[in-house]
Amino acid sequence: MYFAPRMDELKPSDIREVMKIIAAKPGTISFAGGLPAPELFPSEDLREVVNGLLNDKAGQALQYGATLGYQPLREKVAKLMEREGVKATADNIIITAGSQQGLSLSGMLFLDKDDVIIAESPSYLGALSAFKPTESQVVSVACDGGGMLMDDLERVLAETPNARMIYVIPNFQNPTGKTWTMERRQKLIELANKYDLPVIEDNAYGELRYEGERIPSIASIDTEGRVVHLGSFSKILAPGLRVGWISASPELILKFELLKYGADLQPNELVEMMIDGYLGSFSLDEHLKKIKAEYKARRDLMIDVIRNEFPTEAKWYYPEGGMFVWIELPERINTRELLKKAVDKGVAFIPGGSFYPNGGIEYAFRINFSNMKSDKIVQGMKILAELLREELK
Amino acid sequence: MYFAPRMDELKPSDIREVMKIIAAKPGTISFAGGLPAPELFPSEDLREVVNGLLNDKAGQALQYGATLGYQPLREKVAKLMEREGVKATADNIIITAGSQQGLSLSGMLFLDKDDVIIAESPSYLGALSAFKPTESQVVSVACDGGGMLMDDLERVLAETPNARMIYVIPNFQNPTGKTWTMERRQKLIELANKYDLPVIEDNAYGELRYEGERIPSIASIDTEGRVVHLGSFSKILAPGLRVGWISASPELILKFELLKYGADLQPNELVEMMIDGYLGSFSLDEHLKKIKAEYKARRDLMIDVIRNEFPTEAKWYYPEGGMFVWIELPERINTRELLKKAVDKGVAFIPGGSFYPNGGIEYAFRINFSNMKSDKIVQGMKILAELLREELK
Repeated sequence: MYFAPRMDELKPSDIREVMKIIAAKPGTISFAGGLPAPELFPSEDLREVVNGLLNDKAGQALQYGATLGYQPLREKVAKLMEREGVKATADNIIITAGSQQGLSLSGMLFLDKDDVIIAESPSYLGALSAFKPTESQVVSVACDGGGMLMDDLERVLAETPNARMIYVIPNFQNPTGKTWTMERRQKLIELANKYDLPVIEDNAYGELRYEGERIPSIASIDTEGRVVHLGSFSKILAPGLRVGWISASPELILKFELLKYGADLQPNELVEMMIDGYLGSFSLDEHLKKIKAEYKARRDLMIDVIRNEFPTEAKWYYPEGGMFVWIELPERINTRELLKKAVDKGVAFIPGGSFYPNGGIEYAFRINFSNMKSDKIVQGMKILAELLREELK
Repeated sequence: MYFAPRMDELKPSDIREVMKIIAAKPGTISFAGGLPAPELFPSEDLREVVNGLLNDKAGQALQYGATLGYQPLREKVAKLMEREGVKATADNIIITAGSQQGLSLSGMLFLDKDDVIIAESPSYLGALSAFKPTESQVVSVACDGGGMLMDDLERVLAETPNARMIYVIPNFQNPTGKTWTMERRQKLIELANKYDLPVIEDNAYGELRYEGERIPSIASIDTEGRVVHLGSFSKILAPGLRVGWISASPELILKFELLKYGADLQPNELVEMMIDGYLGSFSLDEHLKKIKAEYKARRDLMIDVIRNEFPTEAKWYYPEGGMFVWIELPERINTRELLKKAVDKGVAFIPGGSFYPNGGIEYAFRINFSNMKSDKIVQGMKILAELLREELK
């Protein structure tokens, strides 16, 4: 049977493969997935809301609904965008199945075969999987602790006439935990304007800042309607609900509506109404306060072990928020090999090579601090520290 | 800004546009949407299930899960496929966001730019919206009351070397309500084998048979793993849950997994577990018995008015199941114009022209009998009958 050529581009995600290995070995201390802490889900509050819905509004909650999403939720999400410095109304919002669907629809909107996406190096591999069915290519731009290097971006833009879209994760980036400075954000918008390119701003982690000042979103300094801002309830409420959103100009939202209709008709009405009810009856801020306190404590524990017990040759970035720490080892260490040894000792992470679309450094790795409880973090990190000391001695 | 060329192909769905007109005029008796009866949703049972889940298994139900879907639900769906005469295991199943996502992923798997989909004339326009982002084209095959005309299909296949996929709705078709004979199903498989083409069997309505014998699915007579069978809980449980499935060979399922991962990572874990819990604790058969009795009664009421009060020039098909009756008027009547008059009188339907991808007859229309209660059906159909008598006098 014939398959579309796009299928040649698709390969299983390294991360999902690592997750399968871990699932097969129960008891593994996993710093691999980008998973929130399940014990912090507001399950009682959600239970109260869904109970009410299925009592009073089942006919609506279980029925077909609007492709753009549940109107009251779109209004509440528009209000949430104020936190990002964006003035939005419901007309700027479409509800998506997690921010992953926002990525996939963005690829469909902007990318044709052989077009180029400009992305950070390294970047979120799930995004690159979302774009691949368009048969486009990624060109990476080097980054430092403050985001993309603007000289490198400018060079790449000048050299790449078929660049069609810039994809960035400016807050607590996946996988590196890095946050862009305001200067870089401003320069990015300047360059996007100059080259007339859309910017996909993936902000899945923005709310999870544990210290320091919030930096305005790229969407907030966009004056030409070229930023597609992706938000998500996955990291702040619960990923199993699969609710995210796109905030963009009303013109772009209508195009996303056409794509969403073909892709799956509409969002999940029941969970949209659940989240809407939750936001109406409970305090998201209180919940965020709680999860941020816990995630900060876990990050601090992780950083403590890194600081005190990791070999000094291991370089790492201090994340002010999010879920990840990125570690770079001396070049001679291949972290795909290292992972096998770590899993044997009962600990898992994601090898850094997985985050480079065109191949990249194989001597880095990503560790997650949000999913494991404190005692497991200390225990797992000490195992990892010992393994690294052995490997680097 | 530049948009991908596929965007030139996408237009708003006529049906969604009609739905917006109706939404703006509360009180309209709507035979337009393909909506189930909201008063028949098993909301109390679902409430019990979701309560239990958020009490006992919230950490799993609200967390990330598998791209292929929740394993126990995949097993139960495999078992449901026995009703279609298909021997399946969980390896044959991937859970999708309604069968609409199954259509969209099928398009991505099989279709490249300028490829051809062979479809019934008329056909479900949502499917054609799902395929359009691939920039493929539809070639239609004529149908009668027993499904596609096999001579016409054979001619089209011989004339269309770039045909890549056959898309059919063999049970209680949308929009015509027609059901394929066994002979046509067998001949379709023969031709698909001869031309080495996949068959997308859209079976959203298969369970809603009100009389007569069930006819085995096309998947059940497939010996070469070329049928992609799409099922859905939308019409038998609740569409707002957005849960459907693809049943296909394990080789194809792995390809769908890659596409699903890019599209939205995974299904909605909470609603998957809700449906799994519902199927485990309650009787789907009992529920089906209840909704089928009600839908049959509504169909009979609708048919009564058509038989007794519609002008004789109105031709119609008797549907043995599903949700729709298809009516063809004399050629001089344009049903898009007729709709405006009907809406003024408080009744809505979908003009038939909406179901022809390359333009088709404008003198037919589709009416739905599942969504309105009995008294509204009689009231609305009498208004429609009077309007038709006026128009045809």
